[in-house]
Amino acid sequence: MNNLKNQFVSLKQAQAQLAMENAAAKNKALAAAAAAIDRNRDNILAANAKDVEKARAGGMKESLVDRLFLNGQRIDGIIEGIEVVIRQDDPVGRVCSGWTLPNGLLVEQVTVPLGVAAIIYESRPNVTADCAALAYKAGCPILLRGSSSALESNKALVAAIKAGLEEGGGIAGAVELAVSGSRDEIDEILTARGWIDVVLPRGGKELIRRVVENARIPVIETGEGNCHIYVEPSAVATSADIDKVIAIIVNAKLQKPGVCNAVETLLVHRDALATLMPKLAEAMAKKAELRCDTESKAAAGTTAGCTIKHATEEDWETEYLDYILAVKTVGSCDEAIAHINRFGTKHSEAILTNDLEAAQRFRTGVDAACVYVNASTRFTDGGVFGFGAELGISTQKFHTRGPMGMEALMTYKYLVSGSGQTR
Amino acid sequence: MNNLKNQFVSLKQAQAQLAMENAAAKNKALAAAAAAIDRNRDNILAANAKDVEKARAGGMKESLVDRLFLNGQRIDGIIEGIEVVIRQDDPVGRVCSGWTLPNGLLVEQVTVPLGVAAIIYESRPNVTADCAALAYKAGCPILLRGSSSALESNKALVAAIKAGLEEGGGIAGAVELAVSGSRDEIDEILTARGWIDVVLPRGGKELIRRVVENARIPVIETGEGNCHIYVEPSAVATSADIDKVIAIIVNAKLQKPGVCNAVETLLVHRDALATLMPKLAEAMAKKAELRCDTESKAAAGTTAGCTIKHATEEDWETEYLDYILAVKTVGSCDEAIAHINRFGTKHSEAILTNDLEAAQRFRTGVDAACVYVNASTRFTDGGVFGFGAELGISTQKFHTRGPMGMEALMTYKYLVSGSGQTR
Repeated sequence: MNNLKNQFVSLKQAQAQLAMENAAAKNKALAAAAAAIDRNRDNILAANAKDVEKARAGGMKESLVDRLFLNGQRIDGIIEGIEVVIRQDDPVGRVCSGWTLPNGLLVEQVTVPLGVAAIIYESRPNVTADCAALAYKAGCPILLRGSSSALESNKALVAAIKAGLEEGGGIAGAVELAVSGSRDEIDEILTARGWIDVVLPRGGKELIRRVVENARIPVIETGEGNCHIYVEPSAVATSADIDKVIAIIVNAKLQKPGVCNAVETLLVHRDALATLMPKLAEAMAKKAELRCDTESKAAAGTTAGCTIKHATEEDWETEYLDYILAVKTVGSCDEAIAHINRFGTKHSEAILTNDLEAAQRFRTGVDAACVYVNASTRFTDGGVFGFGAELGISTQKFHTRGPMGMEALMTYKYLVSGSGQTR
Repeated sequence: MNNLKNQFVSLKQAQAQLAMENAAAKNKALAAAAAAIDRNRDNILAANAKDVEKARAGGMKESLVDRLFLNGQRIDGIIEGIEVVIRQDDPVGRVCSGWTLPNGLLVEQVTVPLGVAAIIYESRPNVTADCAALAYKAGCPILLRGSSSALESNKALVAAIKAGLEEGGGIAGAVELAVSGSRDEIDEILTARGWIDVVLPRGGKELIRRVVENARIPVIETGEGNCHIYVEPSAVATSADIDKVIAIIVNAKLQKPGVCNAVETLLVHRDALATLMPKLAEAMAKKAELRCDTESKAAAGTTAGCTIKHATEEDWETEYLDYILAVKTVGSCDEAIAHINRFGTKHSEAILTNDLEAAQRFRTGVDAACVYVNASTRFTDGGVFGFGAELGISTQKFHTRGPMGMEALMTYKYLVSGSGQTR
């Protein structure tokens, strides 16, 4: 416990120093951190090998071991990630707006770093370097609390980053790694009022719930994505249209089913069922299971290789993260909107349509971070949106929403310039 | 308890409806609400008279009774407040930024209402109407939880507002008043996850602490203001300069000492003590007590009518809200910044100087919502800043900072327009 308290103090001290650094100084320090990672490849890979060995001995699934595993190429990727952050504009000190009051006072709203951030995350070592670099550039010291299964890798990475920051004339105390690996550590972070200004949980539903319920500091919820695509009748008017619709659904479901922006439920307008469902069953055959309501199941008919089960209420609220797609029939755009607003997680929602009014209604009515017209939900991503590195995808509406880059770690202050004004 | 649950449901239903209303429709409904208040003056005044009688019978201080009290003129003020909101631009649907991705997808970041708000506030009935109007225009249904001492007044006001909204074709369910007056009610609001999207506590330190510690929904902390003015030596170089400095300090301390943007501690550079302190003691004589550290006390000397006590550590952390000013000697701008960042409440901080470098250092180094150069701290106010009506002044850095108008009740969504793009 004591160790973490020392780290809180270090981060707090670093906060004031880092807030005074200009972009050139921050970039120089980050470049030195990248160079230090490059120089310490052997250490980092050796540490990672220990984590991997321990994980396999403990029976970790190979798909998870793969997330943990590092090699030379992946270290190149980590270094490239830091370089992306260096190339990004400095988000600090941007004048968002400004005006002069009748008494001559000039008021300017200027971006400033939010403060000390903490991130609690899964066993991916690249997240360690990405988040450290991104927070540093944003002027926010960061406490990294990675999975205990990646502890040796993270220790080696953070040691290199801190050494690099120091060499580059930067502030090594701005990056700290929580090392006990205990659950108590998480509770200590969540109750660190006055020390930590925001905590970002990344990972499973369970972790996020735990953080939200126990935090006494501001939280940014991330990740859960029960995403929908609504197919409106005008979208399947011609066979070319249908092909486009199928291509989007296939992409949103099959390209990477384990991610939060994959589609989980398809909402089909009753008038589109007959045209769409047989084609859909064909496209999903041997690739994904369908869970249909009665009407859509009847419309799908029987297609060789396509498993179609009856959907239950539970399907509407499930984020499968798997090769499963739920299908529900709706009678109108409003019914689709109502279903999404009830069962969605405010992540990414799409309408496929050629009807302008329906598109407009859907965009206004759906309460989600990203609302798509005629595109796959898979584009919700900080990198794709052009934010460079990504801290995660916020599914809350408070402070920041959707893919989070450095802007999510910004707040602002009002600078007021006078010449003796009194009220 | 059941009543509040019904209100949560009403507010949630209103949320979807209100999000679809355009500015003209919202303004029409608000104008009808103002007209209904005008028409129901007698009811409102009669209800208020009951509250006032009960408050006096219960021994409420007259200064507090005055906050509760309504008359014809104050009702005019309430109506004018709604008209100010009507005249303000609609904050919903503003495109904050937008860009086109390499694949042709158009991404637009557009403001949308945050959701259902709740406000827990002191016994001022004008806050009831102000916040109802402001939230309505922002597209956010609101649960009003006023002081139980203003319950009859609030009931009459909210009944008029709801009737007016209804008549004006608006959504009456978007404004709800919590009526039990019990403390349990507050706890029910604070744990209403899924129903309430943000809660704003307004009032004493005690209430705010309680809300922050118990809330399981996002909170915007407001109000506590331990504000400082730092007098740098160059600010007192000529007698004209000194007069300006004294005028600012007098204004910031004496014009309205009971408000959060009044100054509480003066930080004086050692080299400015001899020039400033005797003039300050003169200006504060018979008006405010000084609590000085040893050096500033010695410099002040003895002035007829000026009470000067020795300051203790406790003075640095106290928001007096009274005719008391603490004075501390510092050796540098950095020492002033460090004192402010340690004891301040991140509200409003000022430097008085003719030195550009000191001004710049102070603006960058001080962590507060509003940082002033050569002006009184008293300008931190939504009305003064030009935000129209004000929800309060945020002293947190998360989501919104400083004076809060309708923008504080906004979030955004990304609207993504495509033509069949897949990843």
